[in-house]
Amino acid sequence: MKLYWSPHTRSIRVLWLLEEIGSPYERVLVDIRQGDQNKPGFEKINPLRKVPAIEDDGVHVAESAAICAYLADKFPGAGLAPRLDDRLRGPYLQWMYFAAGNMEPAFFQAAMNLEIPESQAGWGSFDRCIGVIEAAVSQHNWLLGERFSAADVLVATSLYYGMKIMGIVPEKPAFLAYIGRAAARPAFQRAQMIDTGTIDGGAA
Amino acid sequence: MKLYWSPHTRSIRVLWLLEEIGSPYERVLVDIRQGDQNKPGFEKINPLRKVPAIEDDGVHVAESAAICAYLADKFPGAGLAPRLDDRLRGPYLQWMYFAAGNMEPAFFQAAMNLEIPESQAGWGSFDRCIGVIEAAVSQHNWLLGERFSAADVLVATSLYYGMKIMGIVPEKPAFLAYIGRAAARPAFQRAQMIDTGTIDGGAA
Repeated sequence: MKLYWSPHTRSIRVLWLLEEIGSPYERVLVDIRQGDQNKPGFEKINPLRKVPAIEDDGVHVAESAAICAYLADKFPGAGLAPRLDDRLRGPYLQWMYFAAGNMEPAFFQAAMNLEIPESQAGWGSFDRCIGVIEAAVSQHNWLLGERFSAADVLVATSLYYGMKIMGIVPEKPAFLAYIGRAAARPAFQRAQMIDTGTIDGGAA
Repeated sequence: MKLYWSPHTRSIRVLWLLEEIGSPYERVLVDIRQGDQNKPGFEKINPLRKVPAIEDDGVHVAESAAICAYLADKFPGAGLAPRLDDRLRGPYLQWMYFAAGNMEPAFFQAAMNLEIPESQAGWGSFDRCIGVIEAAVSQHNWLLGERFSAADVLVATSLYYGMKIMGIVPEKPAFLAYIGRAAARPAFQRAQMIDTGTIDGGAA
């Protein structure tokens, strides 16, 4: 398993997930700040020339949410995705696609300060997106209840990024507590230390 | 299986997929042009108050891409999703999340005529998104090669919508041919006729 990554990008999601799984993987640095993603050959790894991307026994997968979905299903023992016949599978998928298809454009809309009628936006509105997440993480520790999943990896990283980097997510107690629970996980801490170069864990 | 739907919305994706599967389902009209989604009770079906949404043996799933992913896995006999151990599973997930997380914001950016540096947009750029799809559907009939999948349902409907309704997708021969192949499928035609009220198929 190879992870093509760059520090301070959505690669952190996959680093975190791989550290949750605990299976060995090799990290390959694609320094996007040096333009490594535009070097010849990388389009074979990901035609969109973005990180993260993985290579698993010759199969390439890109898009951070897709990689997380793929890995969570590939390593069922890690318990990061309800199995196909689990009643939580539907809610899990809903959160996974919500993170990719709603939070992404809603955050973008908020960052650009754009007014659009809710009826015209597939993601509803930024406030409604935020409200749904707040309701979920106020009631339970994780999106699926007391069970941590790959959906939390996606939603917690986006929420953190939207709060600390973009400055668009309000610092509500429920969000701070949820991000705190995420940040307390040893796998998250290892991923952060790899991302900042403090440790070299996970590499083969 | 109940489908909460409204004509001329992303519900068409799920209608099409359900018609591909061929298993009975009940349609429940939630007329968003009459504000039905804001009636008391619908927040229990989907807290984002959007259609489509499904109810499967008491489990609710919303987000059109999540519903398609869920149904494609639930009915493996329909062959609309590579199984977990299939080498096409990774590319399939990549296209599914690409449709939700890249096409959606990229099309929005194009419709709003917004300039953003590629490095700042998780989806790269509209042109790059379009280029990747064009390359895929020029070489093969479907995104996974000669095998039709739920990813085609998502990408073909977005492409069609972006071309015919939003007017932002260029009428390139490869796109017209791909949309033509999609429109030639009997299940797509039935879904269209249900959407326009010409037939009442699919209802239990």
